[in-house]
Amino acid sequence: MTAEYNTNIKMLGPAKVTSSLPLWRHTENRDTVTMHLDPEMIGEPPNGTIPLEIEIAGPRSKIFFDPSKTKCAIVTCGGLCPGINDVIRAIVMEAYHNYKVPSVLGIRYGLQGFIPKYGHPVVELTPENVSHIHEFGGTILAASRGPQPPEEIVDAMERMNISILFMIGGDGTMKAAQAIEREVDKRGNKMAIIGIPKTIDNDIHFVSKTFGFETAVEKAAEAIRCAHTEALGAPNGIGMVKLMGRESGFIAAHATIALKEVNFVLIPESKFQLHGPNGFLTHLEKRLEMRGHAVIVVAEGAGQELFERKGADLSGNIILGDVCSVLRQEIDQHFKKKNIDITLKFIDPSYIIRSVPANSNDRVYCGFLGQHAVHAGMAGKTSMLVSMLQDRYVYLPLSLATEKRKTLNINSNYWGSVLASTGQPSVMLSTES
Amino acid sequence: MTAEYNTNIKMLGPAKVTSSLPLWRHTENRDTVTMHLDPEMIGEPPNGTIPLEIEIAGPRSKIFFDPSKTKCAIVTCGGLCPGINDVIRAIVMEAYHNYKVPSVLGIRYGLQGFIPKYGHPVVELTPENVSHIHEFGGTILAASRGPQPPEEIVDAMERMNISILFMIGGDGTMKAAQAIEREVDKRGNKMAIIGIPKTIDNDIHFVSKTFGFETAVEKAAEAIRCAHTEALGAPNGIGMVKLMGRESGFIAAHATIALKEVNFVLIPESKFQLHGPNGFLTHLEKRLEMRGHAVIVVAEGAGQELFERKGADLSGNIILGDVCSVLRQEIDQHFKKKNIDITLKFIDPSYIIRSVPANSNDRVYCGFLGQHAVHAGMAGKTSMLVSMLQDRYVYLPLSLATEKRKTLNINSNYWGSVLASTGQPSVMLSTES
Amino acid sequence: MTAEYNTNIKMLGPAKVTSSLPLWRHTENRDTVTMHLDPEMIGEPPNGTIPLEIEIAGPRSKIFFDPSKTKCAIVTCGGLCPGINDVIRAIVMEAYHNYKVPSVLGIRYGLQGFIPKYGHPVVELTPENVSHIHEFGGTILAASRGPQPPEEIVDAMERMNISILFMIGGDGTMKAAQAIEREVDKRGNKMAIIGIPKTIDNDIHFVSKTFGFETAVEKAAEAIRCAHTEALGAPNGIGMVKLMGRESGFIAAHATIALKEVNFVLIPESKFQLHGPNGFLTHLEKRLEMRGHAVIVVAEGAGQELFERKGADLSGNIILGDVCSVLRQEIDQHFKKKNIDITLKFIDPSYIIRSVPANSNDRVYCGFLGQHAVHAGMAGKTSMLVSMLQDRYVYLPLSLATEKRKTLNINSNYWGSVLASTGQPSVMLSTES
Amino acid sequence: MTAEYNTNIKMLGPAKVTSSLPLWRHTENRDTVTMHLDPEMIGEPPNGTIPLEIEIAGPRSKIFFDPSKTKCAIVTCGGLCPGINDVIRAIVMEAYHNYKVPSVLGIRYGLQGFIPKYGHPVVELTPENVSHIHEFGGTILAASRGPQPPEEIVDAMERMNISILFMIGGDGTMKAAQAIEREVDKRGNKMAIIGIPKTIDNDIHFVSKTFGFETAVEKAAEAIRCAHTEALGAPNGIGMVKLMGRESGFIAAHATIALKEVNFVLIPESKFQLHGPNGFLTHLEKRLEMRGHAVIVVAEGAGQELFERKGADLSGNIILGDVCSVLRQEIDQHFKKKNIDITLKFIDPSYIIRSVPANSNDRVYCGFLGQHAVHAGMAGKTSMLVSMLQDRYVYLPLSLATEKRKTLNINSNYWGSVLASTGQPSVMLSTES
Repeated sequence: MTAEYNTNIKMLGPAKVTSSLPLWRHTENRDTVTMHLDPEMIGEPPNGTIPLEIEIAGPRSKIFFDPSKTKCAIVTCGGLCPGINDVIRAIVMEAYHNYKVPSVLGIRYGLQGFIPKYGHPVVELTPENVSHIHEFGGTILAASRGPQPPEEIVDAMERMNISILFMIGGDGTMKAAQAIEREVDKRGNKMAIIGIPKTIDNDIHFVSKTFGFETAVEKAAEAIRCAHTEALGAPNGIGMVKLMGRESGFIAAHATIALKEVNFVLIPESKFQLHGPNGFLTHLEKRLEMRGHAVIVVAEGAGQELFERKGADLSGNIILGDVCSVLRQEIDQHFKKKNIDITLKFIDPSYIIRSVPANSNDRVYCGFLGQHAVHAGMAGKTSMLVSMLQDRYVYLPLSLATEKRKTLNINSNYWGSVLASTGQPSVMLSTES
Repeated sequence: MTAEYNTNIKMLGPAKVTSSLPLWRHTENRDTVTMHLDPEMIGEPPNGTIPLEIEIAGPRSKIFFDPSKTKCAIVTCGGLCPGINDVIRAIVMEAYHNYKVPSVLGIRYGLQGFIPKYGHPVVELTPENVSHIHEFGGTILAASRGPQPPEEIVDAMERMNISILFMIGGDGTMKAAQAIEREVDKRGNKMAIIGIPKTIDNDIHFVSKTFGFETAVEKAAEAIRCAHTEALGAPNGIGMVKLMGRESGFIAAHATIALKEVNFVLIPESKFQLHGPNGFLTHLEKRLEMRGHAVIVVAEGAGQELFERKGADLSGNIILGDVCSVLRQEIDQHFKKKNIDITLKFIDPSYIIRSVPANSNDRVYCGFLGQHAVHAGMAGKTSMLVSMLQDRYVYLPLSLATEKRKTLNINSNYWGSVLASTGQPSVMLSTES
Repeated sequence: MTAEYNTNIKMLGPAKVTSSLPLWRHTENRDTVTMHLDPEMIGEPPNGTIPLEIEIAGPRSKIFFDPSKTKCAIVTCGGLCPGINDVIRAIVMEAYHNYKVPSVLGIRYGLQGFIPKYGHPVVELTPENVSHIHEFGGTILAASRGPQPPEEIVDAMERMNISILFMIGGDGTMKAAQAIEREVDKRGNKMAIIGIPKTIDNDIHFVSKTFGFETAVEKAAEAIRCAHTEALGAPNGIGMVKLMGRESGFIAAHATIALKEVNFVLIPESKFQLHGPNGFLTHLEKRLEMRGHAVIVVAEGAGQELFERKGADLSGNIILGDVCSVLRQEIDQHFKKKNIDITLKFIDPSYIIRSVPANSNDRVYCGFLGQHAVHAGMAGKTSMLVSMLQDRYVYLPLSLATEKRKTLNINSNYWGSVLASTGQPSVMLSTES
Repeated sequence: MTAEYNTNIKMLGPAKVTSSLPLWRHTENRDTVTMHLDPEMIGEPPNGTIPLEIEIAGPRSKIFFDPSKTKCAIVTCGGLCPGINDVIRAIVMEAYHNYKVPSVLGIRYGLQGFIPKYGHPVVELTPENVSHIHEFGGTILAASRGPQPPEEIVDAMERMNISILFMIGGDGTMKAAQAIEREVDKRGNKMAIIGIPKTIDNDIHFVSKTFGFETAVEKAAEAIRCAHTEALGAPNGIGMVKLMGRESGFIAAHATIALKEVNFVLIPESKFQLHGPNGFLTHLEKRLEMRGHAVIVVAEGAGQELFERKGADLSGNIILGDVCSVLRQEIDQHFKKKNIDITLKFIDPSYIIRSVPANSNDRVYCGFLGQHAVHAGMAGKTSMLVSMLQDRYVYLPLSLATEKRKTLNINSNYWGSVLASTGQPSVMLSTES
């Protein structure tokens, strides 16, 4: 089974330059460790574990690039997520202070920043101008959605003479990184492409937890607390919170067990029906009857089985049906029909969650991701991403991470705990409806 | 001019019972102070000041009710606001511990709680069961919107043998309090009706600042900060935040000068046009051209001149046109027409703002409001509310506060500072559009 | 009685320059208002009110200085306090943007910054370099304690050609401002000296509430909450929190009623004995007997009657006896003697409170203080400070504010509420000990 | 080498009762996984990895205790730490709701609660009375330090008929758990002893990260930020923060890289000298010379080489020399001797850090620790603790965890990153001093 999982990291060439890093324990290229992965994490059936040899992240004693002639670039893509500035800062600090790289460029507005027609200027990133950016949310480079032609991107990289490109982004960005690397390879350029996975949904394979996730859960829990207070504050009060999670319900589930006041959590992985004796509305009605209020958390990608498919957006993401609008309408109608007065308060904290600065633990995490990305790039590794697996920073081929999306296993103890916390039925589907 | 402002507090009868309060300085009924009010606060033209004799709040040495035979009740009405539980707690603690009143009832779900057909049970409030409620947002009594027949309410008060009713609510609730007091008066009942004004909009006359306002501004500023981060994070990024403020823009204005990152703040008091050479869209376009991003704060009642009037809701509030939807559509169309790509992120933090616990200063404020409400009720005052004016707690007739709504004077230095902070034009109206 | 209170503001000369300020309602020099002050606020016996004519702050249509030739300077003195950077920012923004003043200098490290021997460089403050400083606590100019010779300061001001000096500091700084102004006056210089009172103790006469006070109370309440949790967590747990308050217990008292978990609050205004049947230790023992835990809040200047006087520090402040050390020792001995095991946890949050950024309400307050300071200086006023009284921004002579310190009236309803919240005896003094 | 690490979990007897748990995937007793542990985590030389078979935590389909006849007890020992109430809540909820155990007792004030002479009452813990406790810091059971005789504890357990004892505490508590289990075993009692490791220092072997650690780091970072602000605010300002960490510097190190404003971090694992050309004071002086301010973070157990040993406290912990007092004195003397004025601000946030509620991620962690503890106890496991290793919840023998303390490897990349962040020398020892 492990044959399918090629964990070898591609190299630009032999690493012959001696690193000047004042570190006592260089981690060498062949310093891999066997990890027995939980199959759920990589989308396999949940039997046994999958042993893989995985390369440990860290500085190497021999590196590929001569630091004094190396120019780095950083680009940030997609939606905001707590911690991006921390990663940028760490890359700049590591490159300048430890490797003495003379120049790190910031590409503005995502991949658009490479394309001349947009006219976005490039910025020089220095230890001085990044030293306080971690205090602020967002990305100082700004971002944009959607792909740009790899050829034009590599043209721009050639013009700017970039040796290492650090790409901070989600699934789509990691795919774009692969396309760029293929173009680089085709041209025979010695340019390293290093991915740092960023997705607030935490849905990337072979990544235990994406950066910013914990901060996001904290803010999501605050919003749910507010929904709970509002639900308690009115007769038959319903508090509904929409959370991120296009294809996986990690934030919704984690915030639910963190806060413990949620009665229904709807996630993409667990289909449900609205009507019928075992439908969501029936259970909501029972809950209101018993307790007089209810809190509902909805991942934005939940209930897509209730919609027709709608095509894709600029970033190639499928356009989701607006599940919360449907839920609000259906709830409204259901209780009107039954002559029950309800009060529904809806909270969409999405941009509040995405734009806050990272908490301390995410900051530490982002710092190491940035540093290990630099170690990898300087060593001549490419077409790879930096990840944390089983509490260790590791290097993985981009191909492994982009194959499919990570989803939440609804047959796990984890989800069982979520259900135990909400008290909702494990299945809200009935045959007759 | 002051003739119109009757500041005398109505009494149920002579106060003959000696208060047992262990306080060194009883404030007597005739302890009024002359205040030279800013005419803006009470909706008069901004010339000079208006001197009024106003009764200072506080315990009286002689009270009307015999504490051992007094039963109090508390009801909370309308939307949530930080600090309601603090007021409830303070009333209960003051009544029990200082006056030794044997019973304080909590009426559930607003005025519905008086009406038998709703079947809401009444709860007994004790020092034990309210001692920690200030740690939580919302109202432990829950609330509802809309009036109920004063006759039925007074019937219920008679059945429950209530001597003092504390009503925590907004403009509508203060009017309901007047109606209830008229019914009480008609029946010759000795029941005191004491209002504690609660409105997150801060739009009540003769009240410097309603409780919860500072906490609300704090949370509003957090949401605006997020909008700013989002706006900075995308090409031509626009962050739009909808804030409370049906007829007055106090929260929007205050949060704007607190945060200093807002470029346009739209409030009900300052009409604007969308189109034309001096319209909002023109100025927004200029701002994006110059700086590449913009932050817009919108009070929910802004721009109502763009809508037809729509009738009123249960609480008698006029149904507002959804200004943010119109703005989002118009912005979208405007820039599409001009072939300019923008990214608009919309944040509606309403329920997050309303449902948080009060900050320390609001807590202290709520505590005194509650205590002074009890002092007033025990002294036999009625048809009045507790307010803070010019840094002093005072008693005012309900009639004064309900005459009209407080609005923000757009010819004031205050509003001038807001405009200076945003850089927006003082007027966005043109003749030709 | 009001004869003693001279509220006239000194002018450098006639204001003949027309202000370019785009404000609709210039407030003129003679725009005073009668305020009926609570005598407690100004250290008078608490009978009736004291009516004073007080000048309202605001921009004047005619100003004294020609903006294009005006150079301002800002100096910050004494300990940190939330909001200093907000005041600095507001002064810079107002001077540059509204008055078009070409230069605002920042004096580094308090009054030391004027004295050549210290060698501190002066910094140019611009809208660009102050635009984000309000996000950070502290003062970007840094501060120092203690006076410097007024002659040398005015020498430096002459060398730098300063027209208006803004001094942000406490009681000592306001006195230094008076000395500097006297020196300026002696030399016949046209230099305005404008004070902005800063003291975390809130103990300045004729100032309702100094900036940063609310933020400080919020943080103080957090520390008390922790002390409460610690006290609950151990057998006979005692949580003790030391708060600011050298001569007045405002923070201690306000945080106490905000949090409601304090059992003893000790402030300078209320003397107490440790021993004897009505001493503090006796009451503490009773409390532990009854409830098994206790929370004690101590203002740093409390209990000074237990010490010999110790001289003064650099800033001229009397060196206080370390009341918390004495309390901890005495508590320890008392319970050891009685063979009662206790666990005392001591929290000194002083620098955590002083160094946080201001909350939103303090930010708005600081913004207006800064703006009104600029209005005053440009109008040619001097030897004055900006204050808020009865909800209005006003100008007051420095002499009024420096006469004595504001203290908390322990015969007030306010202090009565504090005692009601703690349950401590109003007096802990006995004749025999 | 792995022979020394016995990972087998002791069982009270065969598990024959069928669990009623409505979970889809019971994890069976033999469901172990091979983990390749980093030797540093368990105090071995840092070469290669150590493969161990470790039992995965989770519910078992067959359990030992008949739930309807099972009585559980919870005791919390030692100092406070964020998240204790979350663990208590999770145990109670899991025992009641999933296993239908009829009674969970709370032992008050740590092990004292078992000993009759202290007279502490036992409390019944129910889903109702624990449902909100996670909102508050501390422990609702309270705690105490120090051991109590195992015989008396087991006597009490027999009297109360306790089947499963959950012990939440640190190293000392885990050793006490072993002693209790030996006594239970000697008497042939069928009582399970389950440890849940709690130590804010994060210094327990075979535990990746103890609960509350992330929350503690967050609060520690806030205190350091304040120290930085204070340091910047005065000429030659020094901000010093004392953090927890008796034998290991994890919190100090983690907070340092989270905040990035620290210039010196002193931890127990890295000895240092004060004087001499490479001593701490020399480096501090250089730093002040260059930058005018410095931030120092000190773990409480740092620099113990500067003291004589002092015996042990009630809990058996060695009494530490007060390193911060020594540092403050020595710094004071050093700069006085050199005639350099400095301003040192000292912050000890210890009890503020310990007593706050857990953040969301720690809450989720605590929830699972509590649930897995119940699964283990019900299954008849004993003399074990619940831990998280490599992102998995596992069961480990108490003996493994108590052998020695986990310390921070100062030859690791982790510590290298800390040094890179502070800029301090890796060694501050010189031969001549």
